[in-house]
Amino acid sequence: MRDDTLLYEEEETRKFSLRRLLIGDPLSTAQAIHERLTKVKALAVFASDALSSTAYATEEIMLVLILAGSQAIHLAWPLALAIATLLVIVAFSYEQTIHAYPTGGGAYIVTHENLGELPGLTAAAALLTDYVLTVAVSVSAGVAALTSAYPPLYPYRVALALFFIGLIMLLNLRGIRESGTIFAIPTYMFIAIMLAMLGTGLYRWYVLKTTGVPLPMPPRIQYEAQQGLTLFLILRAFSSGCAALTGVEAISDGIPAFKPPEAKNAAQTLIAMASLLITMFLGITFLSYQFGIVPNEMTHETLVSQLGRFIFGDGSVMYYLLQAATMLILILAANTSFSDFPRLSSILARDRYMPTQFGNIGDRLVFSNGIITLGLLSSALVVIFQGETTRLIPLYAVGVFLSFTLSQSGMVRRWFKLRTPGWQIKAAINGIGAFATGVVFLVFAATKFIYGAWMVLLWIPVFISFFLAVHRHYQDVARQLSLESTGSPPPIRRHRVVVPIGDVHRGVLVALNYALSISDDVTAVYVETDPTKTEKVLKKWKAWGNGVRLEVLPSPYRSLVRPLVRYVTRIDDRRRRDQVVTIVLPQFVPVKWWHRLLHNQTAILIHAAFLFRREVMVTDVPFHLHQ
Amino acid sequence: MRDDTLLYEEEETRKFSLRRLLIGDPLSTAQAIHERLTKVKALAVFASDALSSTAYATEEIMLVLILAGSQAIHLAWPLALAIATLLVIVAFSYEQTIHAYPTGGGAYIVTHENLGELPGLTAAAALLTDYVLTVAVSVSAGVAALTSAYPPLYPYRVALALFFIGLIMLLNLRGIRESGTIFAIPTYMFIAIMLAMLGTGLYRWYVLKTTGVPLPMPPRIQYEAQQGLTLFLILRAFSSGCAALTGVEAISDGIPAFKPPEAKNAAQTLIAMASLLITMFLGITFLSYQFGIVPNEMTHETLVSQLGRFIFGDGSVMYYLLQAATMLILILAANTSFSDFPRLSSILARDRYMPTQFGNIGDRLVFSNGIITLGLLSSALVVIFQGETTRLIPLYAVGVFLSFTLSQSGMVRRWFKLRTPGWQIKAAINGIGAFATGVVFLVFAATKFIYGAWMVLLWIPVFISFFLAVHRHYQDVARQLSLESTGSPPPIRRHRVVVPIGDVHRGVLVALNYALSISDDVTAVYVETDPTKTEKVLKKWKAWGNGVRLEVLPSPYRSLVRPLVRYVTRIDDRRRRDQVVTIVLPQFVPVKWWHRLLHNQTAILIHAAFLFRREVMVTDVPFHLHQ
Repeated sequence: MRDDTLLYEEEETRKFSLRRLLIGDPLSTAQAIHERLTKVKALAVFASDALSSTAYATEEIMLVLILAGSQAIHLAWPLALAIATLLVIVAFSYEQTIHAYPTGGGAYIVTHENLGELPGLTAAAALLTDYVLTVAVSVSAGVAALTSAYPPLYPYRVALALFFIGLIMLLNLRGIRESGTIFAIPTYMFIAIMLAMLGTGLYRWYVLKTTGVPLPMPPRIQYEAQQGLTLFLILRAFSSGCAALTGVEAISDGIPAFKPPEAKNAAQTLIAMASLLITMFLGITFLSYQFGIVPNEMTHETLVSQLGRFIFGDGSVMYYLLQAATMLILILAANTSFSDFPRLSSILARDRYMPTQFGNIGDRLVFSNGIITLGLLSSALVVIFQGETTRLIPLYAVGVFLSFTLSQSGMVRRWFKLRTPGWQIKAAINGIGAFATGVVFLVFAATKFIYGAWMVLLWIPVFISFFLAVHRHYQDVARQLSLESTGSPPPIRRHRVVVPIGDVHRGVLVALNYALSISDDVTAVYVETDPTKTEKVLKKWKAWGNGVRLEVLPSPYRSLVRPLVRYVTRIDDRRRRDQVVTIVLPQFVPVKWWHRLLHNQTAILIHAAFLFRREVMVTDVPFHLHQ
Repeated sequence: MRDDTLLYEEEETRKFSLRRLLIGDPLSTAQAIHERLTKVKALAVFASDALSSTAYATEEIMLVLILAGSQAIHLAWPLALAIATLLVIVAFSYEQTIHAYPTGGGAYIVTHENLGELPGLTAAAALLTDYVLTVAVSVSAGVAALTSAYPPLYPYRVALALFFIGLIMLLNLRGIRESGTIFAIPTYMFIAIMLAMLGTGLYRWYVLKTTGVPLPMPPRIQYEAQQGLTLFLILRAFSSGCAALTGVEAISDGIPAFKPPEAKNAAQTLIAMASLLITMFLGITFLSYQFGIVPNEMTHETLVSQLGRFIFGDGSVMYYLLQAATMLILILAANTSFSDFPRLSSILARDRYMPTQFGNIGDRLVFSNGIITLGLLSSALVVIFQGETTRLIPLYAVGVFLSFTLSQSGMVRRWFKLRTPGWQIKAAINGIGAFATGVVFLVFAATKFIYGAWMVLLWIPVFISFFLAVHRHYQDVARQLSLESTGSPPPIRRHRVVVPIGDVHRGVLVALNYALSISDDVTAVYVETDPTKTEKVLKKWKAWGNGVRLEVLPSPYRSLVRPLVRYVTRIDDRRRRDQVVTIVLPQFVPVKWWHRLLHNQTAILIHAAFLFRREVMVTDVPFHLHQ
């Protein structure tokens, strides 16, 4: 019992509990300090999602291409170039959003404001879906980096992924906004080691090319063609690779976190991030192809791990650092969703499209419900798809590209409305962005549909209907509770009080005493399930009942609640708005919680039965046992 | 919503619902008619448990013996004779109980009355445990009869057993006391076909013996000795075979169900049952041995099925009738526990050793909670032991023999107390019964211990502690609620009412109106989690608050409940017994149940927080939405 009431006992705020141990003491509202980020820190905070996708993007392109046999692999390079071009377009497009929405221009806000409710909700549904997928994909890929370095862990990948999701969830429930510095370490470590690997690799490739000095090449795995090299297959490979673009929008959501001048700093950070992303993605793709490294479906070793092992040498410290940095940045990428999902949910809750609970700030100043929901949903995905990145990829990025298209279209619309100086060029840039991402979205929908994208495309309208149903309900409630249309209720002239009793004991007398203090029209009722006991109750009532009338209600079917409901319905004249009926329920409260199970739960049934009847009040009168 | 309240809506008693479809309309108390049974019907009702055990008892003896190799099988016959002798002793002993307790002398009643509380509870714990095992063993053996006739069903035995348990549970929740005739058919069918098989078998054996005409004998399966033929093994085989004795006590529990003269009719039925049981058990054991039939661990075919197939011929109608009758009587045997377990539980609940809910008579005039509990526990056993009779046997009958011993000892004690004419002989008979069953119980405990009996022996004391803890709690409650030690509480002189509000709307005004009708000392409180909203609430309150004071409670940690608890604690002077505080909670009730999820569940938290504080009343004031 003690533990349950802990939260409500003022004296015990600081007492030990598992909850406090895990997520920390409550923080007061005044403790919400906004830490402003320098560009260097901001890159670390916002870039992990985008940069980390280089850990799997090249591999996912190749995994599709090898379906047409090993010789199709050479297409990876032109596809990577196409994706890089797309990235440049998207980055320029978002750079404009940053300047237009210096207070934060997430896709939902931009779309809602410029294109209206339904497109806005579509963007929101698409984004929330992709946040869940980002966690599942990133954590799965992070675990793959770990199991590539230490293969015996491969069978435990689902458990490991769930552990990491749980850990991130817990950290976010504690609140990790003080984490700019913490973020910086793995992100810069990843950038540094990745650039070191690409530099070393390029140098060795150059030496190989120019001097003809033989390099020990890894054995090239040969794949038989399972199908022809169709345009569809090439577009599917392109779609898989577009996962590299996810996370590019992160900076435009978080502009207020930058040091002033916010918009300028954010835009510069975006350009830096895009440059790094293109460098790393193209570098990995180029070197893998040149060194003949292809995905290995037997050992489950990732492409980046194979590349790192080849360039740095098997068992070298640099190789292990690469794997560690890859794993950490992927887990950080998942963490990004843990701040984006709850924030977008809370914005939707504020706009009354999501349950109000998603807008509640927990006692650690975070949107706890959003964090927990994201943790549960992404864990479910990991279990369903068995922690395999490749199986999740067909679902991934569909939502992101839908939201890209919508938000860039919203920007175009905005330029046409505002017509600020130079709007034509800006509209053109956003228009190209919208067009390019829109085409890619359609390519996604077509090429990934049967591989899993159908789930996302089916889910988004369901999600939107949910938003709208919630919104309608809140509007209904607000209208019905509104004071505008109606005055105060009439004063109560007649107050009837009913005290249901099962026996005559001290708890009953306390309730009766209370009943007599609130009205002079009190009736006790005894539901007779066993006629042999009635006489005894009547006799006791005569002695202790304080002169109050006792009605005996027969219950031929032995139900305790039904005769009481029937009685109250009879005495409650619904036409009289100035009359109320109160049921005063004697309740004894045992000391130990399990003692409750030893008593009939009639009070709960009575509450449930009357909650749905108009105008009947139910008062609990507790009588505390002390043993 | 509709479905949940069905039970409480008077108009809807007869409305369609799944519950009504499955278990039928409620029955009124007046509909409880007692059907008196003739001896023929009574044998059918009470004998199924005892007779059905012949379906597996011989096999269980042999399964232990073959551990010492096939040549040990010949010991089955002398062991069966020993068990038959024990049965005669037990039957005579119980015959005396019947005459001494003509209103029903179950082991708990006899032991409790003559030996005291603790032995009585031991008998009760032992019996309840064995009822659960009876269901698991009988249904498993019944399913084995079915899968022996149709082997492809063997892999589905657990699902089949669970289906049968569910079916029996459902029938018992409907109430099947009108079932004397229904019981008669499978029981007499089983007796008839079993006797027919034994008669045919004996005739063929006789022909074989005397004329030397060769009989096509089934191939005798040879078992290698895995261990020596020790006394321990022989006693273990004996213990397994004693499962044949379970159910012998059933008649002495149900004497009032007989037509008058009840005791005489019951005693004669007991003798008839014991004779049939001995005939069938010895017959099966004798013929199996003579025809060289031994348990077949490869095909999972039961011994009785093999015997029937040999005597009646494979694929014959008689063979299939035998299997059908065996299955049916075993399921009937399980059904017996479904009346015994709830009845004993209700007696224990009446004596306040079990939670009072086990004494509730459901709307179909049955002890529904006992039935459901038994169904769940036996299903769990079936799942744990994978529906294999042999794995359950070591746990079985331990409890029965413990209760036999206790109740026969109780009878001895009784004769010494009463000293009615001829008491010495009666005491001697019960004494022999008590001694014999006591020795067998010790043999059980020793030989079956490591094979599973330890679970039962460990469980029984746990169960007794539970009985005693429950009893102590009920006594504590009765003492604390007693009116003897204290008078009526003092009349209430000061009544403070607190109305917590989150906003000012129609529901709040209804609650405020109610609060003003029960006291003139009303305060509204607003817990301030977001200071930017406070101004608006204060302004609205000024317009609509009816002049009532509004206190703003700061909540730095954004908890809604804690500041309220703190406030109430401050105003509630616990030293003044004539003062009460009521919290009047405005609650709006949505139309659809899922709409509830869209609102903060603060009301529930407030209820939970105050239920454990002395003297604070909580009143729900519902405001019904209509959309």
